[in-house]
Amino acid sequence: MTPFKLTEEFIAEIEQLIDNRQDASITSMLAEVHYADVAELMNDLDEDHATYLIKLLDTEKTSETLTELDEDVREAILGNLSAKEIAGELNELDTDDAADIIGELPKGMVQEVISELEDREHAKDIVDLLRYDENSAGGLMAKELVKVNENWNVLTCVKEMRAQAENVTRVHSIYVVDDEGKLKGRLSLKDLLTTSTKANIKDVYIPKVDYVNVNERPDEVARIMTKYDLEAIPVIDEIGRLVGRITIDDIVDVIREEAEKDYQLAAGISQDVEADDSIWQLTRARLPWLFIGMMGGIGAASIINVYEGAFVKFPILLAFIPLMQATAGNVGVQSSAIVVQGLANDTIKKGEILGRLGKELLLGLVNGVALAAIFILISHFGFNTTYMVSFTIGIALVTVVVNAAVIGTFIPIFLHKRGIDPAIATGPFITTSNDVLGILIYFTIAKHILNF
Amino acid sequence: MTPFKLTEEFIAEIEQLIDNRQDASITSMLAEVHYADVAELMNDLDEDHATYLIKLLDTEKTSETLTELDEDVREAILGNLSAKEIAGELNELDTDDAADIIGELPKGMVQEVISELEDREHAKDIVDLLRYDENSAGGLMAKELVKVNENWNVLTCVKEMRAQAENVTRVHSIYVVDDEGKLKGRLSLKDLLTTSTKANIKDVYIPKVDYVNVNERPDEVARIMTKYDLEAIPVIDEIGRLVGRITIDDIVDVIREEAEKDYQLAAGISQDVEADDSIWQLTRARLPWLFIGMMGGIGAASIINVYEGAFVKFPILLAFIPLMQATAGNVGVQSSAIVVQGLANDTIKKGEILGRLGKELLLGLVNGVALAAIFILISHFGFNTTYMVSFTIGIALVTVVVNAAVIGTFIPIFLHKRGIDPAIATGPFITTSNDVLGILIYFTIAKHILNF
Repeated sequence: MTPFKLTEEFIAEIEQLIDNRQDASITSMLAEVHYADVAELMNDLDEDHATYLIKLLDTEKTSETLTELDEDVREAILGNLSAKEIAGELNELDTDDAADIIGELPKGMVQEVISELEDREHAKDIVDLLRYDENSAGGLMAKELVKVNENWNVLTCVKEMRAQAENVTRVHSIYVVDDEGKLKGRLSLKDLLTTSTKANIKDVYIPKVDYVNVNERPDEVARIMTKYDLEAIPVIDEIGRLVGRITIDDIVDVIREEAEKDYQLAAGISQDVEADDSIWQLTRARLPWLFIGMMGGIGAASIINVYEGAFVKFPILLAFIPLMQATAGNVGVQSSAIVVQGLANDTIKKGEILGRLGKELLLGLVNGVALAAIFILISHFGFNTTYMVSFTIGIALVTVVVNAAVIGTFIPIFLHKRGIDPAIATGPFITTSNDVLGILIYFTIAKHILNF
Repeated sequence: MTPFKLTEEFIAEIEQLIDNRQDASITSMLAEVHYADVAELMNDLDEDHATYLIKLLDTEKTSETLTELDEDVREAILGNLSAKEIAGELNELDTDDAADIIGELPKGMVQEVISELEDREHAKDIVDLLRYDENSAGGLMAKELVKVNENWNVLTCVKEMRAQAENVTRVHSIYVVDDEGKLKGRLSLKDLLTTSTKANIKDVYIPKVDYVNVNERPDEVARIMTKYDLEAIPVIDEIGRLVGRITIDDIVDVIREEAEKDYQLAAGISQDVEADDSIWQLTRARLPWLFIGMMGGIGAASIINVYEGAFVKFPILLAFIPLMQATAGNVGVQSSAIVVQGLANDTIKKGEILGRLGKELLLGLVNGVALAAIFILISHFGFNTTYMVSFTIGIALVTVVVNAAVIGTFIPIFLHKRGIDPAIATGPFITTSNDVLGILIYFTIAKHILNF
């Protein structure tokens, strides 16, 4: 790889060349730069400079660049292009990428752009794809694939393929269909290279082929493709006809997005946001969880208020409220994270609730006793607490840890059973409930042992 | 896809058939089951049953099954096989998978297994791969690839390829090398199908080819392959010779593991663990963070102790300690998660620290004021606090939120600059420091406004 590094100097130079309209220099400077790098460059340019580049460079490069741009940058640039210019870009793209871009256009523009598409076959395929829900196999698939009829022989097949392959960037498999277009099996390019040209497709194709239905959920497609190590999977409609194929690069994006979403949920961010989103978008994604956390804090305040009497006799108990709260929160998040991941990658089967709870209970006990022992030592020497108070706090610590572990385990499993994404349970939700419960347990135990 | 569903009944039936030694029935029952599903089945069987299956079934299937098993199950089963039996399995595997399995064998076993490998060429390739660090491109790559000499013509090339392709499951690209084995370029199977057989490779190959060095880090390989949408990438050694190739399915695993690691770090789990690991492994991964969190709680206790005088005059201030702490923790985790993700997917450039901090400061201010306003209403009606105390807590809340947002942003950026994985900063680390700082800020502000 000739590594391309996008430097501030490079950006400044491009900007200056654009300002001076030195088209030839720009074209030659970017000739050897990969479209993904051009997209990075454009993300850093202002709208006018970026639009200038899109109009200047060859559509073969700019069309792919468009697919790699940040969504807001792409939206801005497309707003500066005519329907004819957008159609020119889409002509160069695979149907799935073209449909994705059309899906982002303002409603009024869609019809116009489609009517400007030169290749009517391509236009028809794109329109077909627009019908499918973005969140389904149909929304992920492309129409570009190589298919042959089971009644052909290898020679006809190779000829047909040469014609079809022109439009297909990567040929993973050759799909075999019957006269009605129903998927029958597959044939690898390798097989084709190593088989006599006189053989009939019917006799050489592999009738076992993995496929998904157009309505399948993207994460299920991802699970199937990664589990069975597939680089492409054909998509069939309700009556078994081959309608498209999904390639692994689209699935890599699905996996990344899924992981990012889970990570954000665990951190208490309720919708998909990025670091460069607006303050308003970020606030909307973050404030709801903060509010839930605050209600937990107010709940805790009410509990503390009830036990006001104890403050007078044992003021030291108050000092350790943050300790109880932090430990309960941390344990709960740890337990729930393990369970959420275990559910996601099938390490935990749906049936295993009791075993799982038992294990977390034991684990909580081990961790809790270890923490309590350390605590008793520290509090004795650092805070001059009486043995009785140290012991009380230690017992409370163990109970709080065990409780947090059990709750952190139970909630995600419960949500998963009900068909709700368990990732939503991690983060502030678990933390908040453990905060409040932790303090309640703490005071209840202290009340009973210390008799206040 | 003929969807295979692993049911309890299916497992029970297989177990019974194994107990009754009904080999023929077992073989026919599993004949059409994909190796990835057989691996799931074995993960659920006990060691003896699983070992029986491995020995019974054809190595063509069991070898792939072995690669898909949970690590501890695989270790147990391999422990029951002789060196000759293990070598029999490895014979069927690609070099990268074979090397991975050998890497897990006990030291004393390695030599013996290698000497039992039938195909000496294959054995040599596997031994070559064992030299590379698991955490490098060399550790990910396989030796299976199709390469042709730039001095051949297309006909020779097709002949050679037919021979080589026998050992390569998936041909993505044909790599072109010179007489010294140095990577010169590539050729697609499609090009080969559509070019005259008399043409010289030298005249038709594409000299531009992406590649990585054997020492490249796996996450950098993943970044390059996903950025440039590559399904396979050739690996070269220090002097440019083609030594292997990495395929996208291995990269999918890298991406998944990376995402799981980040998620666990954010949840305060310090090493890679799974739901079904032992209590001891889980404790080792979890206790250190809990201990750090506890030290934070003890720090908070010391601060509260210092301000003991205030308790007498304003006991209500104490009741809202959990609120301050929870809010500070939640905001810090949100901010750091956004930054960690932004750094991972390049939305945040290394230079942008000031802009980023400014944005989080503003965001903290918006969120903080919103929370404070809601709080003042609730506390006024719910807790009968005086205006002055409500106002004090409101001001403290805004300050705590802004501070937590800034710290949550700064720490990951700082770690990233120093070359440390910023994901380590999220979770308990940020939560703990924000807990303590939040309480300190709370009391300092209260002291100044309320004059105690």
